[in-house]
Amino acid sequence: MTDPLVIFTPSGKRGRFPVGTPVLSAARQLGVDLDSVCGGRGICSKCQVAPGVGTFSKHGVTVEPGALSVWNAVEQRYKDKRGMIDGRRLGCQAQIMGDVVVDVPPESQVHRQVVRKAAAARDIVMDPATRLYYVEVAEPDMHEPSGDFERLAAALEKQWDIRDIRAGLDVMRKLQPTLRKGAWAVTVALWRDHRGGPAEVLDLWPGLREAPLYGMAIDLGSTTIAAHLVELRTGAVVASNGVMNPQIRFGEDLMSRVSYAMMNPGGDTEMTRAVREGMDRLIAETAAEAGIEAREIVEAVVVCNPVMHHLFLGIDPVELGQAPFALATSDAVTLGAREVDLRELNPAARLYLLPCIAGHVGADAAAVALSEAPDRSDDLVLVVDVGTNAEILLGNRDRVLACSSPTGPAFEGAQISSGQRAAPGAIERITIDPETREPRFKVIGCDLWSDEPGFTDATAATGVTGICGSGIIEAVAEMRMAGIVDAAGLIGGPAQTGTARCEADGRTHAYLIHDASAEGGSRITVTQGDIRAIQLAKSALYAGARLLMDELGVDRVDRVVLAGAFGAHISTRHAMVLGMIPDAPLERVTSAGNAAGTGARIALCNIAARAGIEETVRRIHKVETAIEPRFQEHFVNASALPHAVDPFPELARVVTLPQVSHNTGGEGGGRRRRRSA
Amino acid sequence: MTDPLVIFTPSGKRGRFPVGTPVLSAARQLGVDLDSVCGGRGICSKCQVAPGVGTFSKHGVTVEPGALSVWNAVEQRYKDKRGMIDGRRLGCQAQIMGDVVVDVPPESQVHRQVVRKAAAARDIVMDPATRLYYVEVAEPDMHEPSGDFERLAAALEKQWDIRDIRAGLDVMRKLQPTLRKGAWAVTVALWRDHRGGPAEVLDLWPGLREAPLYGMAIDLGSTTIAAHLVELRTGAVVASNGVMNPQIRFGEDLMSRVSYAMMNPGGDTEMTRAVREGMDRLIAETAAEAGIEAREIVEAVVVCNPVMHHLFLGIDPVELGQAPFALATSDAVTLGAREVDLRELNPAARLYLLPCIAGHVGADAAAVALSEAPDRSDDLVLVVDVGTNAEILLGNRDRVLACSSPTGPAFEGAQISSGQRAAPGAIERITIDPETREPRFKVIGCDLWSDEPGFTDATAATGVTGICGSGIIEAVAEMRMAGIVDAAGLIGGPAQTGTARCEADGRTHAYLIHDASAEGGSRITVTQGDIRAIQLAKSALYAGARLLMDELGVDRVDRVVLAGAFGAHISTRHAMVLGMIPDAPLERVTSAGNAAGTGARIALCNIAARAGIEETVRRIHKVETAIEPRFQEHFVNASALPHAVDPFPELARVVTLPQVSHNTGGEGGGRRRRRSA
Repeated sequence: MTDPLVIFTPSGKRGRFPVGTPVLSAARQLGVDLDSVCGGRGICSKCQVAPGVGTFSKHGVTVEPGALSVWNAVEQRYKDKRGMIDGRRLGCQAQIMGDVVVDVPPESQVHRQVVRKAAAARDIVMDPATRLYYVEVAEPDMHEPSGDFERLAAALEKQWDIRDIRAGLDVMRKLQPTLRKGAWAVTVALWRDHRGGPAEVLDLWPGLREAPLYGMAIDLGSTTIAAHLVELRTGAVVASNGVMNPQIRFGEDLMSRVSYAMMNPGGDTEMTRAVREGMDRLIAETAAEAGIEAREIVEAVVVCNPVMHHLFLGIDPVELGQAPFALATSDAVTLGAREVDLRELNPAARLYLLPCIAGHVGADAAAVALSEAPDRSDDLVLVVDVGTNAEILLGNRDRVLACSSPTGPAFEGAQISSGQRAAPGAIERITIDPETREPRFKVIGCDLWSDEPGFTDATAATGVTGICGSGIIEAVAEMRMAGIVDAAGLIGGPAQTGTARCEADGRTHAYLIHDASAEGGSRITVTQGDIRAIQLAKSALYAGARLLMDELGVDRVDRVVLAGAFGAHISTRHAMVLGMIPDAPLERVTSAGNAAGTGARIALCNIAARAGIEETVRRIHKVETAIEPRFQEHFVNASALPHAVDPFPELARVVTLPQVSHNTGGEGGGRRRRRSA
Repeated sequence: MTDPLVIFTPSGKRGRFPVGTPVLSAARQLGVDLDSVCGGRGICSKCQVAPGVGTFSKHGVTVEPGALSVWNAVEQRYKDKRGMIDGRRLGCQAQIMGDVVVDVPPESQVHRQVVRKAAAARDIVMDPATRLYYVEVAEPDMHEPSGDFERLAAALEKQWDIRDIRAGLDVMRKLQPTLRKGAWAVTVALWRDHRGGPAEVLDLWPGLREAPLYGMAIDLGSTTIAAHLVELRTGAVVASNGVMNPQIRFGEDLMSRVSYAMMNPGGDTEMTRAVREGMDRLIAETAAEAGIEAREIVEAVVVCNPVMHHLFLGIDPVELGQAPFALATSDAVTLGAREVDLRELNPAARLYLLPCIAGHVGADAAAVALSEAPDRSDDLVLVVDVGTNAEILLGNRDRVLACSSPTGPAFEGAQISSGQRAAPGAIERITIDPETREPRFKVIGCDLWSDEPGFTDATAATGVTGICGSGIIEAVAEMRMAGIVDAAGLIGGPAQTGTARCEADGRTHAYLIHDASAEGGSRITVTQGDIRAIQLAKSALYAGARLLMDELGVDRVDRVVLAGAFGAHISTRHAMVLGMIPDAPLERVTSAGNAAGTGARIALCNIAARAGIEETVRRIHKVETAIEPRFQEHFVNASALPHAVDPFPELARVVTLPQVSHNTGGEGGGRRRRRSA
């Protein structure tokens, strides 16, 4: 008699097994993705399956009710204690008695998929470096003496087929009491090295651990440190948070911090201490917000620009401030949290820093590449991560190029006369009537336009305080389309523009957007200097993109992705009016939100993504803008404001990008946590 | 025309090479053991060779003076600057021009042999885990950006064929300035993992480093921490030193320290801190004594008993105090010095702890096994490391057994009425006239016997203060041979012994050795309690050895090795009179000095010895005395003092063992630095 046929859905994997084979064993032999922490002992309930009954025409089998062994006491005990959906069985208890179709529900899959937005370049498939394993360890025997750890390693080999296990002293210290407390059964958190080195026990608990493990995806920006706390089994983001980078006090932008390190002996050490302390605080606060102990966080992935990378690792960034911009190390770095003085995480927590692409193109750009995957794109995609430096990727399956372009902080509202950080009260949207040349605007924290009734009351608490990065981009673009500014960037006087809002400002003019000075409020203008600052910034961005296009020998790109939390707030229409990015069909210009943060999260959730991005980065061709004469050429040529007429009139009054709310866990991240470099 | 023939001596390796091949290249291709740090660039001078001229009948060749290229400017410059023995050539400069015999002098061999005493079981062949490599690193290139470290790794691969290189943050921190200071040439200290993991850059220096690297062999005893500072290229011991183990204040012996940990919450942490601080102090003092910087020490090997092993690693030793005496970990441990808070060594220094054999038989016993190599012995050898616990090994090529026996501290002078540590003033040698029953003795710090003229003056500074371990063994044995003590261990009264020195002492008697009480000095006796303490200790030792002999089914052993600095001071003749060890031909009873320290030194100097001893320890069969009924049986039966008559009358007045002077660097170690467990 032939053995019964078992078909697993959704994988469709099938095989014949002797009567009495547990479903879990069959799944393992077939390589079906069915989870188990306890290894089939009926205590973890992670291997729940849903057997079918009836005729499955797709699979050509008829399944009788008796195809699995009867519901047993272990299953009943689990159901009484914890509850279980009717019709579900424990895969380790239910035995195969006849032909059967067994469905593995998503929550029982190890490599479950994390849902991302439709536009996302790639899905996240859960396969974190650290997983829990329940093991039963042999008791010590005086006649065959061996260490408790050696018997634990033997158990992991026998029960889970995992070899070459190490543990640090913190684990060694708690090993003996934990084994005894668990009566020789423990759950270990085991970290695997994606480069194939030994696996490491990061922590262990007596008996079966039911609580999940956590990881952190950390986006270490020059201005802000942002973190997502991720549940490592499901990939769920359970908390997100951000703190100012305490290094701000040593200089607003990267080069001023490099200068601080050059000018002050020990300055780099001061900055290293500051950023590590800031990160530790962020970790503690985020864990508290999620109601977990920070020591339940066993892994972190960090992405950052090269200067932050070096300062975080305690390496003097001085070489990054001068040609040839040599990194101390460019490869991905794997290290213990304690090596960088992070004291809040689990003492054995492992850190992973993505590789840097070049001296100006950091691990954050690598994370963008991981998230947006230009190397997997069929069409030619330009990915721009806008910040103090813009990181630019251009390519497709065949080839990917990268460069960094020194846009300066104008896009973030710095070096703008009325500029300010994105915060309540800042102008973020603006339109100018091309006939009357009268402006209307919206500020952060208020849903009304400035010409709508109730605006003044609604903004009474904050006032209108300045213009943030996305606001200044819209203001300049609108001024251009309204004929207030010419192609060279010159603001016309009242005579040319016919509006008193174009007021004299020294030897040039400024355009008045808002005046509450009579009530003791602010007076907000766009000055000729502001236009020049935006021209410089956008020229740099455009020139970087053009340089890569030259290198690839193309004149246009198929699509554009604006990355960065900041990128998410830019109106793509206005950006194209300004000529910030090369022309592309507007519907093919999308925002990826905080792609660097997403890349960090992918590397946290999927170990293969680490090896993948390391390989990708090796293949990315780097272009150094600082020494490329054509960059200067493009830069000079790009200073004009090309579009005197709205190129997208049908979109004129539509805010094109979705609003991203504060403190969302998922894509994008909150407005106040934008990355600045 | 055939290529010239090159024959290297002493290896005898030979081959034909094209005219113009440098001698160093030929040596490398033939696998000849010829050193080079600079990789053939004519700057390190480590590849010096001595070419021969004339007819070499052994090799069947005639060598003309022109067989090598003429002396060149590089060689002359080196000779002018540093000096070079006449006739020597630099192997990287001298090219093969005709048939030639080239001698590689010992100092040019990488794997040079370190001379040990004739009696030593195995030689030390130099092949340390850490070596210096000079590399020339490619400069950074903006067009092909890569990290300085990645270019260093590429250089090591290209110039030295070494792959898979890692470095810690301390090295990363100094990498960029060092590369630039050395104009892109550096010397790196590279550590290899004997288990095949990645190699690690421990340190680096600009240009060619001429100074040597150092390692430390540390014997961490319960009472004393002893260290040898070893030059890692030559194996030379450049300084030796010892400090008291600061844990002494928590308890004299191991079990009282385990009790302290059990009774006092945090007690194990206190003891861990104490031993680490003590070791740090020892490292600093030893480096200072040798006139080197402690950070030039890049490696240390530590041997110790299981309790010290756990306390040093920060693991609570409580499980070692109770059956089944489970170790937290028994395998060898490789870790960074900073992980155990050693701050004096090079920050990247690597530590290696030998494996433990069992819960009572530690890494020190493994080190004895490495040094004395019973597993390589053709005849059956009993190796006894005498201390508070005696570690006993018995075996030969076929099989090795190990056990530990709780001798207690009597052999070290503790729990003896007039007992004291070995220190100036302590009686260390004694004879008793069998006729007159009058004693004569020697004390530490004085070469005269007590009945020789000038003794009182010579010992005036210290006085006669007590009896040390080797003294008490001799005293009891001499008392037995003089008929003062009977086979059961009972001290006779004046009536039986005919000497007033056998004085009443409560309900028993005591034997008076020395009385200076009239002058305010000491009064030193051997009491009945002292005899009992020695009987217990020697019975335990003997019973352990017998137990292993039973297990092996043998009645006698071929030879006995007394190990331990303490073992070196015991008169083997007296030990056998007492029945401490099974009978063996006296000339086949030898002392190995501090074999555990020697084992540590072997593991420090030869990386293969680490893998070797790990494998040996796995094969050693462990016998647990605590649960073996036959141990009790042997113990009871062994309490008698067997030899009423001197079994070795011809040796009666000869001190059989060599004196070991204080602070010797080599075998044995100083008297005051004896290991106590």
